[in-house]
Amino acid sequence: MNQHHDPEWFRNELSESMQAQLEQYKAQATQISPQSAHLVEAIQQLVTGGKRLRALLAWWGWQAAGGDANAPEIINAGVALELFQAAALIHDDILDRSDTRRGQPAVHRRFQKMHEDAGWQQDAGHFGVSAAILAGDLALALSEEVFASAADATAFAGEARTAFNTMRFEVMTGQYLDVLAESDVDGSDPDSELAKARQILKYKSAHYSTVWPFALGGTLAGADEPTLLKYREFSEPLGIAFQLRDDILGVFGDPALTGKPAGDDLREGKRTEMIAHALMRLSEQDAQTLNDKLGAEDLSDTDVAQLQQLLVASDAKSTVDSEIQEQGDQALKALEELMISPTVREGLLELTDLLLHREH
Amino acid sequence: MNQHHDPEWFRNELSESMQAQLEQYKAQATQISPQSAHLVEAIQQLVTGGKRLRALLAWWGWQAAGGDANAPEIINAGVALELFQAAALIHDDILDRSDTRRGQPAVHRRFQKMHEDAGWQQDAGHFGVSAAILAGDLALALSEEVFASAADATAFAGEARTAFNTMRFEVMTGQYLDVLAESDVDGSDPDSELAKARQILKYKSAHYSTVWPFALGGTLAGADEPTLLKYREFSEPLGIAFQLRDDILGVFGDPALTGKPAGDDLREGKRTEMIAHALMRLSEQDAQTLNDKLGAEDLSDTDVAQLQQLLVASDAKSTVDSEIQEQGDQALKALEELMISPTVREGLLELTDLLLHREH
Repeated sequence: MNQHHDPEWFRNELSESMQAQLEQYKAQATQISPQSAHLVEAIQQLVTGGKRLRALLAWWGWQAAGGDANAPEIINAGVALELFQAAALIHDDILDRSDTRRGQPAVHRRFQKMHEDAGWQQDAGHFGVSAAILAGDLALALSEEVFASAADATAFAGEARTAFNTMRFEVMTGQYLDVLAESDVDGSDPDSELAKARQILKYKSAHYSTVWPFALGGTLAGADEPTLLKYREFSEPLGIAFQLRDDILGVFGDPALTGKPAGDDLREGKRTEMIAHALMRLSEQDAQTLNDKLGAEDLSDTDVAQLQQLLVASDAKSTVDSEIQEQGDQALKALEELMISPTVREGLLELTDLLLHREH
Repeated sequence: MNQHHDPEWFRNELSESMQAQLEQYKAQATQISPQSAHLVEAIQQLVTGGKRLRALLAWWGWQAAGGDANAPEIINAGVALELFQAAALIHDDILDRSDTRRGQPAVHRRFQKMHEDAGWQQDAGHFGVSAAILAGDLALALSEEVFASAADATAFAGEARTAFNTMRFEVMTGQYLDVLAESDVDGSDPDSELAKARQILKYKSAHYSTVWPFALGGTLAGADEPTLLKYREFSEPLGIAFQLRDDILGVFGDPALTGKPAGDDLREGKRTEMIAHALMRLSEQDAQTLNDKLGAEDLSDTDVAQLQQLLVASDAKSTVDSEIQEQGDQALKALEELMISPTVREGLLELTDLLLHREH
């Protein structure tokens, strides 16, 4: 057996293939005009970073259904998932007014700086947002193009495209619910707030971060419905735990590790489950403070520290920590029941461990 | 022969099919949450309007290559083109800060108003832009999904997808060049400004409004390369004339007919060929006035009238009028040389006439 089952090998192949394909797109853009290559370059810079979580899950899902670990189809499907993720991040950073991503300036900030440095006419901020909208659109189009070519090289193109389409649809509607929840705040029914937060978490993140990538890998290799249901019993709790961990890092994460400012989610006003738990348990006065300061753009470091303290004191953080533990245990139990080779099992165990205990 | 060759019949079929498919997507969104249907509703409202130009060109291109006028594939391909156009318009209106589209509020303004009317928290303008970014993303994803299903029902799916992908790529890079040209203004070389304006016109608009839709119809029906080259000799000058007419309407159009405020393109700072011609011919002082006022958000009606007058007095408008005439003549000459049935020829002649002399 000379197959590579090493995630590091896959990551390298993936990165090389992705950059090679983006170089081709850049050449295509340059033929129109050297300047239109900016859009492709912005995508290239963004995708140098990232954990390749979705691509890796697709790769393991593919192998779990008997796919060849080194097949170009699955590397290509991984590229498509990473490009889709790039599209989502570029637009999400506009929605969330995030200045940084993966430790670098967000794409709209990068374009804004290009404008400022060149001393161009009109508003630099608007230029940055406009260019980033287009860069995200392009990444979305390219992700689909690459995915179609990966899927068409398998015997299960139709099924795989349907899954890809559902994934896209769920993420976009989930993102909208997230944006809406930050505006349409109704604190009168804490239980419904918690349910809403869980729904956003599922559609905006969990399904898309773990459920669909893992299922897509399996689908491309011909996994049947009962198998995919088994997949999901593992991937759904994993995705929930992954996003809950993300929510904690968004408030308590170390900026040096996350590449994002401390308390970024608090400034953004993100209505996570942790916030819902806190609002249920805090005194009326403290709940008011949390509600008022959440989403305030001028939040000071002292404010951030105060809100962090409220989330700890109300046990909201520890409740979410327990939930992560519980969902993680469920995922591990479901993983045990999957009929897969020891190599794949070991790979998935390692990835699960990484996701449940990550610091960034 | 009981085939319908009437564009009115096609328009109705197209609208019905598009709304039926969007209803299904709306149901899919509602299953996630009633609120996530907002995104689909925004697309539905937008696509009730529009001239269906691209869908009609695809329909004629399909028939010109021997396709059945009533085939569901070509109706579906038309739906895909209209949804792609919706995506482009939704994002374009953010880029251009346009408040109205097709005589109604632009999608980001509609969402902003939803926020204001409900008295929600946080910034209504930012909510409007965020929701519109997502609505445009969704329209982009759905357009591709519908196009893939249309293409897969023909024997030329691969060729058609390649054409669709190229169209998307060209529009997005062309839109970027347009955004860039409004910021990166270098008046030192008027000839190069004119060349730049022509390039943007081609990639952002002409190729996408006429060349690709007409070619896509032909490709789906199996037209070969030499035939498609003949198609292009007709569709490219038609697209150039169409967009030049659009540029004139953007400055001189009657708001009651265009559904956009008078002089909208002047406020936006659009660097069209007409502007390039004017800058070449105006006195230094008048050129300075034009350069200074172009793109000023606080442009008054008097300013608009002054700039209109400069464009007329410098013969920039009449130069563009002549160019429209010339490109239109070229298109008509190429149309004569296409080997098509009298029905198709008559239909294309009517459509060409409509495009060259439109008032909105």
